[in-house]
Formats: sequence, C-alpha cells, structure tokens
Amino acid sequence: MRKVAVIAIGYTKIKEHWNLSIRDLFTEAAITALNEAAIDRVDALYVGNMASGYCQHQEHLGALMADYMGLKSPPAVKIEAADASGGMALREGFQAVASGLHDFVVVGGVEKMSDVLTSDVTYAIAMGADQEYEAFIGATFAALSAMVKRIYQHKYHVSDELIATLPVHCHEMASKNPYAQYPFKITVEQVLSSPFVAEPLRLLECSSPGDGAAILILCPLEKARNFTDTPVEIAGVGAATDTIALYQRDDLTTFKAIIEAANMAYKMARVEPGEVDVAEIHDSFSITGIISLEDLGFFEKGEAAKAIYEGEVAPGGKIAVNTFGGLKARGHPAGATGIYQAVEIVKQLRGEAGKNQVDGAEIGLTQNVGGVGGTAIVHIFRRLR
Amino acid sequence: MRKVAVIAIGYTKIKEHWNLSIRDLFTEAAITALNEAAIDRVDALYVGNMASGYCQHQEHLGALMADYMGLKSPPAVKIEAADASGGMALREGFQAVASGLHDFVVVGGVEKMSDVLTSDVTYAIAMGADQEYEAFIGATFAALSAMVKRIYQHKYHVSDELIATLPVHCHEMASKNPYAQYPFKITVEQVLSSPFVAEPLRLLECSSPGDGAAILILCPLEKARNFTDTPVEIAGVGAATDTIALYQRDDLTTFKAIIEAANMAYKMARVEPGEVDVAEIHDSFSITGIISLEDLGFFEKGEAAKAIYEGEVAPGGKIAVNTFGGLKARGHPAGATGIYQAVEIVKQLRGEAGKNQVDGAEIGLTQNVGGVGGTAIVHIFRRLR
Repeated sequence: MRKVAVIAIGYTKIKEHWNLSIRDLFTEAAITALNEAAIDRVDALYVGNMASGYCQHQEHLGALMADYMGLKSPPAVKIEAADASGGMALREGFQAVASGLHDFVVVGGVEKMSDVLTSDVTYAIAMGADQEYEAFIGATFAALSAMVKRIYQHKYHVSDELIATLPVHCHEMASKNPYAQYPFKITVEQVLSSPFVAEPLRLLECSSPGDGAAILILCPLEKARNFTDTPVEIAGVGAATDTIALYQRDDLTTFKAIIEAANMAYKMARVEPGEVDVAEIHDSFSITGIISLEDLGFFEKGEAAKAIYEGEVAPGGKIAVNTFGGLKARGHPAGATGIYQAVEIVKQLRGEAGKNQVDGAEIGLTQNVGGVGGTAIVHIFRRLR
Repeated sequence: MRKVAVIAIGYTKIKEHWNLSIRDLFTEAAITALNEAAIDRVDALYVGNMASGYCQHQEHLGALMADYMGLKSPPAVKIEAADASGGMALREGFQAVASGLHDFVVVGGVEKMSDVLTSDVTYAIAMGADQEYEAFIGATFAALSAMVKRIYQHKYHVSDELIATLPVHCHEMASKNPYAQYPFKITVEQVLSSPFVAEPLRLLECSSPGDGAAILILCPLEKARNFTDTPVEIAGVGAATDTIALYQRDDLTTFKAIIEAANMAYKMARVEPGEVDVAEIHDSFSITGIISLEDLGFFEKGEAAKAIYEGEVAPGGKIAVNTFGGLKARGHPAGATGIYQAVEIVKQLRGEAGKNQVDGAEIGLTQNVGGVGGTAIVHIFRRLR
C-alpha cells in the first residue's frame, strides 16, 4: 500500500452564499487548491455531499463538478454518509492513491443549505437519522442529541455550566479565523441564557447550517515534494458504523463507532492519543463534542468538560482542539465539514494557522461523525520535515 | 495492487415491491450473497444508490444497511453517480480490496422508486441531468435522449425499424429470466406502434423505473478459492466523465466518457473488444444502447442496429449482449443497475445463466452510464479455471 500525502488545500468562507450556486462554491475552493498544487492533470475526483438531492434537486455531482472545474474527464463520484460525507470522501480518495490506481486525486466537500427554508434544512439533516423509526415521528437531530445530553449529565453529574465551556472555547478560536461562520466570542452566561432548541440543549450549544466547500489534493508521498515544501502525510485512517437509531443502542453516553474508528486509525499510524498535538473534532452539539473528546481517548469518561474548563484544549494545553472554531463556530456545512477539518489540520502542521497556531505541531487528528454516531471516521496526519 | 475476485452474488426480482422497504430490499439480496460466501466478517460496505434522499427522504444508507444486515460496524458509505451509482460503487469496492486496506468487501446497489408518484420518479431521475441548465427548463431524460436519437438517425441514416431491434432482443432475453421486470417478448411492430414518450422515442424503447437490489462480495483473488469453486476476477476497471449538459458537447452521436472508460478497462485487463464473449450494456433508451455498442468497440459507428438485426448480439453471435434483458426488460432500478449487470456477468462466467447461457464464456464486460453519458464505468471480468 502506497503512502499518501496532502499537497494542496482550498476552501471558502462559510456563510449564506446567496450569490454562488453549489457548483460555484465547489469550484471556487477547488481552483485555489489546483493553483497551489500546480499539477497538470487530475486522475480522480471525490465529492463529499449530504443533501444536494434534497436542497438543489441535483445529483450526479461528480461529473458536474469535474466539468465545471474544467478537468479532463476524470472518474468522479459523490460520497454520502450524512454529515460524515466529507471525511468518508477523504477515505475513498486515500484508497484511490494508496491502491496505486491513481496518482493525483482531488477530494472535496460541499454543502449549500441556504437554498431551502430553515425548516427544510432541519428535515434534510434528519435524512441522516433513521427515517422510518426516528425522523418520521418528528425526531430532529437536536432532539436526539438532547436525549444524549440528558442521560450523559445524569450518569456523570456534569453541569450545564461545564458543558457550555465547549462552545465558548470554539467561539474563542473562531474569533481569530477569518473564514469562520461565527467569528466572535461568547460567554458561558450567554450560552445558558440562550433559548432551548430541544431541552436541555440550548441554541448556543448547537452548530447551524451553512454553505461552504473545502478541497484537498492528494498524491503519493514519494512524489509530494515535487509539488510542495510542506507535504502532510495521511498516516492513519479508521472508520466504523453503528446503529443509526438510538433506541437500538446499549449506551448513549459513548459512541462505539468513534472508539472503533479511532483505534483503527491510531493503530495504522502507530500513534497514541497522548501524542496528538492538535485535533479537529465533531461538535455538532456541545454534548457530541464532549463525548467525542472522551471516546477519542483524550480524556476519561465524564472528564472532558472539566478539562475544557481548565484550559486543556486551548493551544498550549494538553491537546489543542478545534483551533479554527469547530462545527459550532467555524460552521457545519454538513458534507463539507470533514474536509474543512482536514484543511485546518494541514494548516496547523504547515505552521500556517495564524493566531491559533500550535507551536511545533507534528501530529494532527480529524474526527467526523455522521448522524448521532451512526458513522465515525478518524484521520491522523503527520508533518514531514 | 492486489488482484480482486467476486466470490458471491445476490439479487431480488425487479418489480414494484410494495411490501418491502428500501432496507428490506437491500438486506434480502445481501443475505443471499452472505450465505453463499460464508465469510465470517465484512470489512467494508458500499451502497450504490441514486435517489433515496428524494424518494425515501433517507440518506446515511451505508450505516443503515450495515446495521440492518446485522454486520459488525464496518466502514460504509453510499456512492452516487446518477444511474451509474452501482457501477461506481463496484469501482470503490475494488479499490478497497486492491489497496490492501480491506479483504472482504460487500458492494451493493439498491433503488426503490415505487414509493413516489411516477411524475416524481421522472423528476428524481432528472436530478442526474444538469438541474440549472436542463431539468429546470423541463428537460427529462427521455427528452434529452430523444434529441440524441434524432441526430444519430440523421447522421447515420438508421431506420426506426432497425433501432427497435434492440428492445426486441432485450425482451427476448428477459423472457427466459425469472427475475426480470418484464419477462415477455415484444415485436418490432409493437415497438413502432407504442406511443411516443418524447418523439422520436417510443414507450417500448425506454427503460422504466423499478425497485430492486443486487449484491457482490469481493475478496483478494488469492483467497477466493477458500470461498468458492468458481471465482470471477475483476480484470479491468475504467471510468470517465463528460459534461452533464448536452448543449456543451461537440457530438451527440458518440459518448466520449464511454470510449475513455472502455479504453482504460481494456488496457488494464489486456483484452481487445473482440475477445469479449458477453456484455451487459446500458440501454436506458434504445439509442443509448446502440451508441454504447459502438463506443465500446463492438461495432463500427452507425452499424450496431444492423448487427442486432442480423443476430450478432444473441448468444452464439459475435458478442452476446444483455442476456438477462438489459435495462429495458430486466429492469433499470437506477443505482442498482450496475450491480445487476455485474451479477449477470458473474452468472454467465460461472455457467449459471440458464437458457441464455453463452457456451464457454470466459471474458465478460459491464458498462454502466450515468445520465446521458455524463459518467461511464466499464468493468471487465475473467473466468478462472
């Protein structure tokens, strides 16, 4: 199996992009990356996207984007795994290069949710839940995650104040990230006085829809130095699934798929959780982020919120987390999120992360989740010097 | 790169499955294949599907199907490339095994279109066209393909009678296939007296929506004999894309993506078109099948219809084509079609094709198209003895 590196990145600001269509968004991010890589051909294209069928009534995104980017007829597909679509697209691109079938592969994620009403966005996202047993009876992702928060708090006796420290941390990080959707700070008091979306989850604990696209260009590690001075190796890949519907789970305070995906990735990269310098984790809701930090092996069960309160996830702490704002504040354009995470880790490992740069970061991790833990995908990245 | 083999297959009859949900359909086909393979684990799952978001308001099919099949948490994604979704899913599964990342991979395709009104099915399928430049102004796939038929007939002076021989051939084949959607014969006169769907395309020249699921189980070739006496090698894989929108093409009488995909697959398998014994080709409309037969290199441009009339595509002819009925008569459950094609070729190479068995078939080919030539994917299979 060949080793694989990231040689270029591209992305758009996340916001309501009223003047760009879904193909414009993707192409804007892609052209940045193609200009950076300066490769003369693209052998395959992967497009991570969750809801273009519902939001734009457009499928066949692979061929559409390849054409609109001006590429010469590469194999191209759309990869869907709810809001883990981006991360899973990266995994497919990795395999295409690792297998030896292709050398230069573009992997992107895109989502445009502003084209439909907010109520329709809620419905579109609920397509990642079990339609027949959850969504059909009115369960939204916020409602399902609210149940998770309630049982987690009951089991581990963690206060609302402590859990609120995660969105506060993410907004602090995003305040120094110009492409974040919400680049401003918030306080614990603001979180706790914001309205309930689904009790006990409040508005400022929930990520929100956004439009955005992000791109990575991959090639075999042995060729990477021809195209960049700062290649980043994809050293570990792990993915797993679980029941989509929560009623089938034994335990809602831990996500088995995250544990399995992380163990696979750690093993492949030969890295321990304690060696990771910087991580982009999936905080679609405050509680999802808290549980992720624990299931990834960074903190003991029930301890993550306290660790955040004590500053352990800030740059300079035990492990820097969501240094561009995470899903809560950088934004969560569903199928693009996994690629934004990878772009951010590449920027950290290159030393291009601006005011939130983690000094000497060598090993980075991304963790992208589909639904309420139905799919989990973990990548481990390593700086090459 | 490791060699890859098919060790088991499964499928459902194609029809309006009112009593099975999309997960039931997929699982029914999968259990047949899993029983045949008798493997004790599944390392990854690929689900080819085009329109579950639109037709069932259900995405996240990878995790959903893995759970419903009773698998132990494998990585799982949905692959979408319009009606080439099945073929492209096979390509991803091939890469997963070829790369060395996974040993036992389940690749399936599923589509359930009876859940929505026929007008909505037409709309769902049109999501594979260019929404902004084609579908939005009312172009359906039948309308777009009708334009292709008109210009092809104008250029090559091929009569309606000759083109009608393809659906007649496909129904002849399907009449001996118990899982076909339309297992009965038709005549050229019936084709020519059926109503226009989009002039000059008539009803009996058009494939129609259906519900169905088909499954392949892949593993490294070197391990295949542990699980079956009749392994079939996937010897060649090629895929390419083109503009989705027809107004951007130089020539509507040939599909560049098919030519490129086929050349890639022939080269990889070291096979010439003349060596292929049996092929399952993408006859979503009569004209699409005719053009495919030419662009795959089986017949000269403008000659395919005459060759069909002369019996060259029947078992025993120059090359046996669509021996289970093709999209027209076996059925065209969009995202499942590419996997049905592969299942059929495996049956031929195993000698299990029943009354349409091609004697001594050693090399088979599948060709699956997304939209009107926007995506093309070709696989070449080889019997191992």
